[in-house]
Amino acid sequence: MVGVYSPNREYQVSKHIYNALFSQQHRGQESAGIASFDGEELLIHKDMGLVPQVFDDNTLSKLLGYVGIGHVRYSTTGESNILNAQPFKIGTGKHGFALAYNGNLTNYDELRNRLEQRGHIFVSDSDTEVIAHILNLELRRTNSFVEAFRVVMSELEGAYSLVVLTSRGDLFAVRDPYGIRPLSFGRSDNVYVVASESIAIDVLGGSLIRDVKPGEVIHLGDSGVQTYQLVEKRNYAHCMFEYVYFARPDSMINGVYVYDVRIKIGEQLAKEHPVEADNVVPVPDTSRAAAVGYSKVSGIPTIEGLMKNRYVGRTFIMPTQREREASTRIKLNPIRSALEGKRIVLLDDSIVRGTTMRNIVSMLRKAGAKEVHVRIGCPPIKFPCKLGIDMPTRQELIASTLTVEEICSKIGADSLGYLSIDGLIKSIGLKREDLCLGCLTGVYPVPTQETLEEYF
Amino acid sequence: MVGVYSPNREYQVSKHIYNALFSQQHRGQESAGIASFDGEELLIHKDMGLVPQVFDDNTLSKLLGYVGIGHVRYSTTGESNILNAQPFKIGTGKHGFALAYNGNLTNYDELRNRLEQRGHIFVSDSDTEVIAHILNLELRRTNSFVEAFRVVMSELEGAYSLVVLTSRGDLFAVRDPYGIRPLSFGRSDNVYVVASESIAIDVLGGSLIRDVKPGEVIHLGDSGVQTYQLVEKRNYAHCMFEYVYFARPDSMINGVYVYDVRIKIGEQLAKEHPVEADNVVPVPDTSRAAAVGYSKVSGIPTIEGLMKNRYVGRTFIMPTQREREASTRIKLNPIRSALEGKRIVLLDDSIVRGTTMRNIVSMLRKAGAKEVHVRIGCPPIKFPCKLGIDMPTRQELIASTLTVEEICSKIGADSLGYLSIDGLIKSIGLKREDLCLGCLTGVYPVPTQETLEEYF
Amino acid sequence: MVGVYSPNREYQVSKHIYNALFSQQHRGQESAGIASFDGEELLIHKDMGLVPQVFDDNTLSKLLGYVGIGHVRYSTTGESNILNAQPFKIGTGKHGFALAYNGNLTNYDELRNRLEQRGHIFVSDSDTEVIAHILNLELRRTNSFVEAFRVVMSELEGAYSLVVLTSRGDLFAVRDPYGIRPLSFGRSDNVYVVASESIAIDVLGGSLIRDVKPGEVIHLGDSGVQTYQLVEKRNYAHCMFEYVYFARPDSMINGVYVYDVRIKIGEQLAKEHPVEADNVVPVPDTSRAAAVGYSKVSGIPTIEGLMKNRYVGRTFIMPTQREREASTRIKLNPIRSALEGKRIVLLDDSIVRGTTMRNIVSMLRKAGAKEVHVRIGCPPIKFPCKLGIDMPTRQELIASTLTVEEICSKIGADSLGYLSIDGLIKSIGLKREDLCLGCLTGVYPVPTQETLEEYF
Amino acid sequence: MVGVYSPNREYQVSKHIYNALFSQQHRGQESAGIASFDGEELLIHKDMGLVPQVFDDNTLSKLLGYVGIGHVRYSTTGESNILNAQPFKIGTGKHGFALAYNGNLTNYDELRNRLEQRGHIFVSDSDTEVIAHILNLELRRTNSFVEAFRVVMSELEGAYSLVVLTSRGDLFAVRDPYGIRPLSFGRSDNVYVVASESIAIDVLGGSLIRDVKPGEVIHLGDSGVQTYQLVEKRNYAHCMFEYVYFARPDSMINGVYVYDVRIKIGEQLAKEHPVEADNVVPVPDTSRAAAVGYSKVSGIPTIEGLMKNRYVGRTFIMPTQREREASTRIKLNPIRSALEGKRIVLLDDSIVRGTTMRNIVSMLRKAGAKEVHVRIGCPPIKFPCKLGIDMPTRQELIASTLTVEEICSKIGADSLGYLSIDGLIKSIGLKREDLCLGCLTGVYPVPTQETLEEYF
Repeated sequence: MVGVYSPNREYQVSKHIYNALFSQQHRGQESAGIASFDGEELLIHKDMGLVPQVFDDNTLSKLLGYVGIGHVRYSTTGESNILNAQPFKIGTGKHGFALAYNGNLTNYDELRNRLEQRGHIFVSDSDTEVIAHILNLELRRTNSFVEAFRVVMSELEGAYSLVVLTSRGDLFAVRDPYGIRPLSFGRSDNVYVVASESIAIDVLGGSLIRDVKPGEVIHLGDSGVQTYQLVEKRNYAHCMFEYVYFARPDSMINGVYVYDVRIKIGEQLAKEHPVEADNVVPVPDTSRAAAVGYSKVSGIPTIEGLMKNRYVGRTFIMPTQREREASTRIKLNPIRSALEGKRIVLLDDSIVRGTTMRNIVSMLRKAGAKEVHVRIGCPPIKFPCKLGIDMPTRQELIASTLTVEEICSKIGADSLGYLSIDGLIKSIGLKREDLCLGCLTGVYPVPTQETLEEYF
Repeated sequence: MVGVYSPNREYQVSKHIYNALFSQQHRGQESAGIASFDGEELLIHKDMGLVPQVFDDNTLSKLLGYVGIGHVRYSTTGESNILNAQPFKIGTGKHGFALAYNGNLTNYDELRNRLEQRGHIFVSDSDTEVIAHILNLELRRTNSFVEAFRVVMSELEGAYSLVVLTSRGDLFAVRDPYGIRPLSFGRSDNVYVVASESIAIDVLGGSLIRDVKPGEVIHLGDSGVQTYQLVEKRNYAHCMFEYVYFARPDSMINGVYVYDVRIKIGEQLAKEHPVEADNVVPVPDTSRAAAVGYSKVSGIPTIEGLMKNRYVGRTFIMPTQREREASTRIKLNPIRSALEGKRIVLLDDSIVRGTTMRNIVSMLRKAGAKEVHVRIGCPPIKFPCKLGIDMPTRQELIASTLTVEEICSKIGADSLGYLSIDGLIKSIGLKREDLCLGCLTGVYPVPTQETLEEYF
Repeated sequence: MVGVYSPNREYQVSKHIYNALFSQQHRGQESAGIASFDGEELLIHKDMGLVPQVFDDNTLSKLLGYVGIGHVRYSTTGESNILNAQPFKIGTGKHGFALAYNGNLTNYDELRNRLEQRGHIFVSDSDTEVIAHILNLELRRTNSFVEAFRVVMSELEGAYSLVVLTSRGDLFAVRDPYGIRPLSFGRSDNVYVVASESIAIDVLGGSLIRDVKPGEVIHLGDSGVQTYQLVEKRNYAHCMFEYVYFARPDSMINGVYVYDVRIKIGEQLAKEHPVEADNVVPVPDTSRAAAVGYSKVSGIPTIEGLMKNRYVGRTFIMPTQREREASTRIKLNPIRSALEGKRIVLLDDSIVRGTTMRNIVSMLRKAGAKEVHVRIGCPPIKFPCKLGIDMPTRQELIASTLTVEEICSKIGADSLGYLSIDGLIKSIGLKREDLCLGCLTGVYPVPTQETLEEYF
Repeated sequence: MVGVYSPNREYQVSKHIYNALFSQQHRGQESAGIASFDGEELLIHKDMGLVPQVFDDNTLSKLLGYVGIGHVRYSTTGESNILNAQPFKIGTGKHGFALAYNGNLTNYDELRNRLEQRGHIFVSDSDTEVIAHILNLELRRTNSFVEAFRVVMSELEGAYSLVVLTSRGDLFAVRDPYGIRPLSFGRSDNVYVVASESIAIDVLGGSLIRDVKPGEVIHLGDSGVQTYQLVEKRNYAHCMFEYVYFARPDSMINGVYVYDVRIKIGEQLAKEHPVEADNVVPVPDTSRAAAVGYSKVSGIPTIEGLMKNRYVGRTFIMPTQREREASTRIKLNPIRSALEGKRIVLLDDSIVRGTTMRNIVSMLRKAGAKEVHVRIGCPPIKFPCKLGIDMPTRQELIASTLTVEEICSKIGADSLGYLSIDGLIKSIGLKREDLCLGCLTGVYPVPTQETLEEYF
């Protein structure tokens, strides 16, 4: 998600939005969209696919204007179809706005039901449309975007970072009071930028000013930059999984460099779960930084024992049933000479279902590894995320039903060590009270309907 | 390039070819194609694009049969268009064959002229069509593929690895007498596999038997595996650049693991060009193994100081002119916290034009690096490759006109160390006489028309 | 627009809808869509393009179910984009419905403003969305589709024929109280069909039962066919232009065969504007029936003096500026031998801007026609249609500013005869009070905001 | 097929070629292509699809130059794939040419075998490639296109009209010595045009000069227009089916207006097969002119009793099996009021398999026709065409095995009258010796291998 605003009305921002979106492609590969304001009207283009598939020179050149927003989507709720693609533009003429959103509402059903009682209709099944309805209702009541956001914040429960582009060319950035999902604010020579991850600001040659604060609205418009702290919570609930896996390591989130966290996770793992071994092997690409940390503390050298096919990520056809293992092997391949006869510390960011890890361990053994000691940079994930990370149901999470010993045996490792919750918190360096650890503890910062259902 | 043959006529090989091609996608992103033989006729499908873009379940299911060949293309000669895509199928009915080829002929013009004198016509401007003409002419004369290959080998000059699928279901694998380009031979439970790189055999769950020998033809058909050593040279000319950059590190070429070479290159670099520094930073993805070697010898720890956008590789739109530097930054981004105040050894596989390296050095400095010492795992490239690697003309090669000191100053580094030719040979571990070092020395294993033109 | 319902729940109707839509392709070439109900949920597929471009065997096979609706769109209001494509599906799960609509609302702005005051938001700029909002609001209030339609009919002003598919599998057909746009009801062996034109029923091998009556709702569901006459007007306002130009001649509308009307128009024209001539030449395809009538009364034989390129209708590139005349000639070409030295009666259905007619007359003269007498089967169109036919603004209508004599001179004809309004009414055979003649007289059956603006 | 040449080197002809091709779209809907010469090199673009699908403003703007050729293809020999699409460009650089071709060679197998004996290879299975090989061989021998065409004409047997664009910008038009397929030559203000049908010249605002003569070569180049009568036969063999069905009625072929022939066919039919009836009903679109003639002689008025869906021609999905009859009804629909209780003369151009005619007769009866008298404007087709018209095998031709009476009964008509061969010749107005009547008599102007096989 990104918003770009230039004080210079002649400046064209669509290519900036394009580049910023592309740097955040890892946050969503399903659909991409850009809305811009050309001084007269809201223009929009969105489609299913990756950023370079959805946009070319021609489509970008039609997205005129000095201000715009963009979005890449992966679905946590709602089907994968064009109606759910963002930005979501509503209204035409002078009363419209376009909205892009990252997060997950926990009271979506309740909000939607209430609106449907009032006679509102919905064309998609995405959170975004519910937010657009409430924002629009409050706008008509208050005639002020800031006042409308105040109500929106009081009604929405869950994780949300928003950018809104109005039909008068104002750009608003909004972050939920718990600051669950990231939202960065920066500037380069010509433009202000808000983006889910600070990497987008770097890519535009700019520099990070600060995070949008939890509960804050930033308004970019004719009067320059204006900020409004609408809600102030005693504690935040920053998602720990952004640090562990989701965000790019070159991003800074909540004042903390993701890369540094991952280094410290590796160091901490080495302290919590030391082992005698010949080599540290990270599962590429996310675990390389943790490997650096593990090596540093343990003195065991890191090697690149697993190669990733760098073209994976594009959809590809699954192999025949009889070659299930090959499936992982198409993505990852062991380097025999680095593994043969060696005792390996295998580092990965997290274990979800356990299937991939079992395949990797087996692959290392076949390549001649003498021992495989698995070390995981995230404590056992026992509960599904309700706040914006796409995870399987609780039943499918291997750590929700098995003990660490059982998991170790299931994946065929010689030993298995998970980072402790305390170790994780220490690695991140934020206060425990300011983190969302819902998927580890089952305790979420906001009430979540589904958890109730699941337990009773 | 790949060929798959099953002795079991009921076996379907198109998905194997697909997976094998996908594992070799790095060898060509321009077009992809598969030809198969279903017991009656040659079937073919090819198009511009990446393997997963060209094929889906539907197209694969139509490529019936127990034997087939596949190809991914990047162009060294010939325009980028569908007429140049491979496999190249000629003839219809019982007299046709399909051909896929990797390499570069140095006597293409001469061969084509001779054929055109005889009245032959050409629909493409690729080497492949010339080879097909000669193969076809000799086939009609000799009525034997093996005898025809004997003539083909005597006429073609340059680098070539071939797979040929005949309209009777025979599969032939052919490698030039110098063994310039790689060609591996292996088998899995159900199929024989020939492939440019051994990784393709791994991906199919198989194991490498050996390389196809320089000057050898391997025939897979009703009578099983038959091999013919048609030409025997005293020395070979294996391309050193496959080890340095082109091949995947998890491939074994000419009996040597690419990964091991790269580790040794790093070790050797550390010996030849030691420097006091805080961290080794590899340029991802190719230089990571060299970084491991450099760290091991120097004791300087490796960190991941540069992040690569894992979606790059797909075509994307270039940014506006004013943000030239951002262009590199879309692909690579520095991790400030890993670099700030640090003395960095920056490792890359090679320098071609020098532009990218200048951008990276500047990027590291802006991220706070105190010193940047560049170490390059390949000796200065002073001459264009005539034998299958796509390189700029001699004038554009920075090392063809500037000294190491001048290059160091041009890229803005504190020091610059290239691996020596002897160091490279030692790292590869093959005899100097068995390597092609043409791009380093200007001495090619075969006569090359263009070099003459360039010097006189 | 079409709706198909089978009492047999195993029956699949998507191919019927496809064929029925294709027979009505002339009513809209911009987008096409089908929604079906498979016993559990509403399925939908729609896209920009012609029916055979939007659907193939694969998409049709996914539109399961025994009941469904379809739509082809050309835009009278609203931009041409996918958001405006129909059917328009709202809601998900059990409370949704899908709606397809043909017509034009004259109080759209007022209705939309009122809904926006209430906080409703709009994602498209089409009438359809406004209707969906009101229908949904009333549904929630009344819990009955029929009661909801009663209110909808009292609120909507203008022309509308609707088909609605509910999430319980009920199909409703609704026609505005004036019966401005056509809507037919029929059945074949296996299914009930409602369709804009009776040709769609013919194509399914069925037979017309009757028109849906103005102000009537027909409900097809578990209890069979139920009809509700919700509103009864003293007079109707059937669009005369359906007979003159828009509908297919093989359709029957309001009990009258379009073909018969066109024959009579030709006869009437011959009576009102006789002329001595050698041949009658119809402008293909619409004027052939009128030519039959003109020949019959006048005794002047009809020839095919103008050939139409039967591939026109697909978008094609306009020729260079210097060959403006060729533009008409790409669509139409004269047959010299049929025209040379002849006095021609040129028959066309109507004149809108006059440009095409000028080109045709000039084309006939160049082909050697001695005299060209233009006869037009529709009285002068002086006012834009507000009720569903796409026409230019009043200023562009040649007959709104010029007299018949002036038009005759402008198009370069030897004489020009328009059918009289009385002659038209006689040809149609319905009462004058039951026809909408708004574009001829400026008197519309319903108040129209724009006419006010235009006159004061 | 079309060629356009402008003496003015600044003039751009690609849009002319586009428009000319589009006017001849009825001659081939499978693929379309254009080659042009921009003063330096041959440019080409071709693809599967209709003219407006293959080309847009962008592709046309890249086809620079003052001279070019174009082609639309339907396949008589060779599979439907991109390799068979035309123009066929061979060679690169200065020695290439592009070739477009309409016809069918009867000695294709012999010519191809001979070339393959010489070692030539073929990438397609089309006549065009064989012609290109021979042309190229002779060019190298004679160094003159005209001399090369002389040999080509002596070697090719069958029907062929050719346009050739050389890599020096010369345009050649060639027609076989029997003049089997049409080829017209004309000019407009700025360009010379050769085209399969004269309509293409009309569409460009030009006028027909004359046909390219059988056995003639016309050369358009720097020295203006030069013509060479290379072969002169005593008699020609103009295809009668171009007049009966294939060509557009607004084209003039061999000095005869197609439209006039069709009128006379109708007149002749009325004389040969008079009948008492109420109305003449033509099967649209081809039979309308014949209906005019039939009416004139018989005094029975023509009505439009069958409507054609003007969108048919695009691929569309076939209806379910149970509605076989509807298949014809999707294309054609009867107008009940014109048919009910009437005795109908049903006019069609020809009967091939008889299936469609049976459906139409049944359709008319269901619509209430009292009697249906079928009159066919072409004598019984008993033999397949070997010379360029796509026809079924002999076994499928209904008239090859059944008598007229049997056919009449099979199609369910009250009477059936075919035009006599003499009547057809009279209608065309050329000498019997100058017409190819092979599909009627089995006697072809050139030896045809297949006929021999079929009889012995």
